Amino acid sequence: MSKSFAVGMLLHDDMVAIDHIAPLTVFKLLGAQIHLVARTPAPVSSDVGANFAPNCSFADCPAALDLLFVPGGMRGTIAAMRDPATVAFVADRGMRARYAASVCTGSLLLGVAGLLAGYRATSHWYTRHLVPLFGAEARHERVVIDRNRITAGGATAGMDMALAIGAELCGEAAARHVQLILEYDPRPPFDAGSPEAAGPAAVAVVLARRQPLIDEARAAIETVFGEAVFSEAALA
Amino acid sequence: MSKSFAVGMLLHDDMVAIDHIAPLTVFKLLGAQIHLVARTPAPVSSDVGANFAPNCSFADCPAALDLLFVPGGMRGTIAAMRDPATVAFVADRGMRARYAASVCTGSLLLGVAGLLAGYRATSHWYTRHLVPLFGAEARHERVVIDRNRITAGGATAGMDMALAIGAELCGEAAARHVQLILEYDPRPPFDAGSPEAAGPAAVAVVLARRQPLIDEARAAIETVFGEAVFSEAALA
Repeated sequence: MSKSFAVGMLLHDDMVAIDHIAPLTVFKLLGAQIHLVARTPAPVSSDVGANFAPNCSFADCPAALDLLFVPGGMRGTIAAMRDPATVAFVADRGMRARYAASVCTGSLLLGVAGLLAGYRATSHWYTRHLVPLFGAEARHERVVIDRNRITAGGATAGMDMALAIGAELCGEAAARHVQLILEYDPRPPFDAGSPEAAGPAAVAVVLARRQPLIDEARAAIETVFGEAVFSEAALA
Repeated sequence: MSKSFAVGMLLHDDMVAIDHIAPLTVFKLLGAQIHLVARTPAPVSSDVGANFAPNCSFADCPAALDLLFVPGGMRGTIAAMRDPATVAFVADRGMRARYAASVCTGSLLLGVAGLLAGYRATSHWYTRHLVPLFGAEARHERVVIDRNRITAGGATAGMDMALAIGAELCGEAAARHVQLILEYDPRPPFDAGSPEAAGPAAVAVVLARRQPLIDEARAAIETVFGEAVFSEAALA
């Protein structure tokens, strides 16, 4: 609990609430100085209906953060990737921060902001294959730490990621302390939390619903990051 | 996703945000009809600073819920136990509901409302020993289902509990589907999420800070539930 750190947590409309709340809970318990940063002062919307109020604008967010954190949520990530002000903010603070991190589809936003080119990274299982589009190496791991870029899998991976970040920034003892307070000793009732465990039929059901948004995410990445990718191809 | 169900989720000041958000996320994905119920129309506060707006008063909450759900948070639970209107609401809707459930210290509120006498139940690890005070049998399990009363351990146990409830109310296939969407395949970075794993030194550090609140919770239970306990003792 000794070392404090400054974290900028991006809030955007249609974010997945648990992507935000689980890491926020850990960072609070670690005594972090937390900047909830959004494009406008209005509360942002989330998947569960709850709204979250920012306390900091893009302009007012400290330049040198210890950590920039980006949540996920398909629709919200797509809109954020297509918003030049948001991409510029993530690129700027992410480059300057000691660590830049994301959970779920948030890695796509880090990616179009140019923060993951040449890094190993992950994403929600159904968008992990998009990670190479911005020059990252897709890894099938729950939390991927490559130098100072930290990406995590879907939604619930945020808790695992936040504890890993806690250990990086505050030491393992502090992270273990938080884990004990939150009684994080998970016992999922089923073994169905990964595509491999759930099996192809279950995966097909999810993809049948999500494919249009996955296609939209791919299109957004190609539009925003397209020229950079093209230049790399031209150089090869 | 076929069967919808009606859930009343109690909101109270000083609740632990993740106790609320993790189950809410699961219930939303299961297509539940969700009533966010609070004593007054004002947004309630939480441990992380975020406020949550109710959409339903005690009076307007449907009488026959499929599920009454109560979050935790030491200070918030203590205040809720000491508030006769909140206890009366929990007692009434909990008795009528198909299931009454809690996460973390929320089981203490179910307990003082008389819903756990004669049931097996759990709580956050540091309040589990208080469970016998209202006539329940304390169980050292992450999620305890005894007939239609469901209690869970600290904070992060809400995800495990919500998926178990999902299976009860909507079938295992629906719960597994939600688990896959949320990629709930936890990989805690440390084995420190239980007092047994964390060890006595770590437990002592947590208890040193929490003991005053644990004592206050005990006093609240004894005050509110005291006469009933006394009567049982007199009968024995």
